[in-house]
Amino acid sequence: MSAAPEFEVAAWLNAKGPVSLAALRGKVVAVYAFQMLCPGCVSHGIPQAKRLRQAFGRDELEVLGLHTVFEHHAVMTPAALQAFIHEYRIDFPVGIDQPSNTGALPLTMAHYRLRGTPTLLLFDRQGVLREQLFGIVEDLRLGALLGRLVAEAAPVDTARCNDGVCHI
Amino acid sequence: MSAAPEFEVAAWLNAKGPVSLAALRGKVVAVYAFQMLCPGCVSHGIPQAKRLRQAFGRDELEVLGLHTVFEHHAVMTPAALQAFIHEYRIDFPVGIDQPSNTGALPLTMAHYRLRGTPTLLLFDRQGVLREQLFGIVEDLRLGALLGRLVAEAAPVDTARCNDGVCHI
Amino acid sequence: MSAAPEFEVAAWLNAKGPVSLAALRGKVVAVYAFQMLCPGCVSHGIPQAKRLRQAFGRDELEVLGLHTVFEHHAVMTPAALQAFIHEYRIDFPVGIDQPSNTGALPLTMAHYRLRGTPTLLLFDRQGVLREQLFGIVEDLRLGALLGRLVAEAAPVDTARCNDGVCHI
Amino acid sequence: MSAAPEFEVAAWLNAKGPVSLAALRGKVVAVYAFQMLCPGCVSHGIPQAKRLRQAFGRDELEVLGLHTVFEHHAVMTPAALQAFIHEYRIDFPVGIDQPSNTGALPLTMAHYRLRGTPTLLLFDRQGVLREQLFGIVEDLRLGALLGRLVAEAAPVDTARCNDGVCHI
Repeated sequence: MSAAPEFEVAAWLNAKGPVSLAALRGKVVAVYAFQMLCPGCVSHGIPQAKRLRQAFGRDELEVLGLHTVFEHHAVMTPAALQAFIHEYRIDFPVGIDQPSNTGALPLTMAHYRLRGTPTLLLFDRQGVLREQLFGIVEDLRLGALLGRLVAEAAPVDTARCNDGVCHI
Repeated sequence: MSAAPEFEVAAWLNAKGPVSLAALRGKVVAVYAFQMLCPGCVSHGIPQAKRLRQAFGRDELEVLGLHTVFEHHAVMTPAALQAFIHEYRIDFPVGIDQPSNTGALPLTMAHYRLRGTPTLLLFDRQGVLREQLFGIVEDLRLGALLGRLVAEAAPVDTARCNDGVCHI
Repeated sequence: MSAAPEFEVAAWLNAKGPVSLAALRGKVVAVYAFQMLCPGCVSHGIPQAKRLRQAFGRDELEVLGLHTVFEHHAVMTPAALQAFIHEYRIDFPVGIDQPSNTGALPLTMAHYRLRGTPTLLLFDRQGVLREQLFGIVEDLRLGALLGRLVAEAAPVDTARCNDGVCHI
Repeated sequence: MSAAPEFEVAAWLNAKGPVSLAALRGKVVAVYAFQMLCPGCVSHGIPQAKRLRQAFGRDELEVLGLHTVFEHHAVMTPAALQAFIHEYRIDFPVGIDQPSNTGALPLTMAHYRLRGTPTLLLFDRQGVLREQLFGIVEDLRLGALLGRLVAEAAPVDTARCNDGVCHI
């Protein structure tokens, strides 16, 4: 399996700069695709994302949000999302999935063929998409999935290797 | 005690026409003042309002929402509220508290001196404001309050009375 | 309707002396029939009974337990019940329904034709059985039922009346 | 680290025969030390044990109960435990920790220096005790711990190896 394609994102909120899967290589990455007006996202996905942030160290797991607006485009604007992030005290980076010029689905959502929101994407330390979970995911099951992924070996840092010889 | 002042509302959503406390005289009325981006309103107030709608008959209790926007005015617009009502499957009338020309607080919120959202207002069968409850209200306590109010006698329908003699 | 028959109880735990419905005349009385090894009683009934104790004043509502053992008689003994009451920090009186000499059902349970546990019995201020609720009862509904019962007038204290003339 | 000592158990309920940690070598083992009259065990530990049984395969995780009676000895008898197991529909093996002749603490509880109930013991595939968790454990954290343990390599089955050559 090869590394998953990068997200196509109009802007990252709650982040110091652009976020990329490539830059997170070496960590497990959990991405919550959500919409701020999706009840299951608000009652289940966002609180679970915050619990994830507490349960794992930053060095082993990165938690991201991805605002995949596929309905009510006129009101789920970047400004509305910003207010939502503030009120729900979300402290992880949230990307705004790039709107399409031709259809309702934003680009990353279409590219990853998401079925709706909430969807949880789990990427391993190599950047490979390992799970795409639509709907409610039980904490115990999610913990188990992530525990296994975190236990996998991190990739060799190829920048430190040359002709197969690696230095510190 | 006298009947409470009418709400100052820009528009009623989910209703066939304007709603007034006067027209509801004879019923107990529970009004949830909320904001669509207020986490406690979404996780607690709205679900409780829906349970209320199931637990009492329409002939004895009316449930209303009142969208009292006092922050994030630019994004909690009537169109956004309409989408929220649709997604959260709210089936009771929701009034939009009339924005002020001079301050952040909408007119009804200011008039009733609400402390924030969610706030639950309980009016008795005479239209008198009997409880103004800010924050989380336990189901058992709320049921007890409403059970007592519902048990009170309905007002004599004065339109049917003349010189103290009432006919059917 | 006339006052309900007294409970047939082998012993009262958590009480200073025998408890009788007659002595509680004037208050609403909520009685939880339960078994200490009944999962629904432990997860739902007992916690709700404790919430009831907090939500209403002692002058208007009395909360009682009734241990109606109809299975596992050998292990749901008075001593086991005493330990249960201690561990679950139950602070209202609990009667032990009088075992039958001839069958599995204890006497009060048989007399009141209870369908199982948990069952909640609600008596009004006159001592009349008004509700017999088998299984899980939602807090909002229970609050409403009790709010209405509490709102009913207390009985005239006939001991203070003579030939229709009542003194304080 | 070496394999943990075996449990000292008076009897195993819900099992076809004696259960031993040695016989489970190669699997991760989660053991809930509980008492049937311990509220936190009943409301939290037992339901979580059942969720664990659903979330992991039998080939990778074994779930056991250990009834560590250190109070109310007279009523938390094997017969009472049997009724408890029946009523709470527990379908994993439960060992009765061997009572002490000299003190309140049963032998395994004393040996493992458990602080109380519920306590969750996690053994790795080598039979080494890796976690001893007293009190409430969040599902997400527990899933993560077990996911990591399950991801560890199973021990080489030394009985199948001779002079470093292993056959099936």
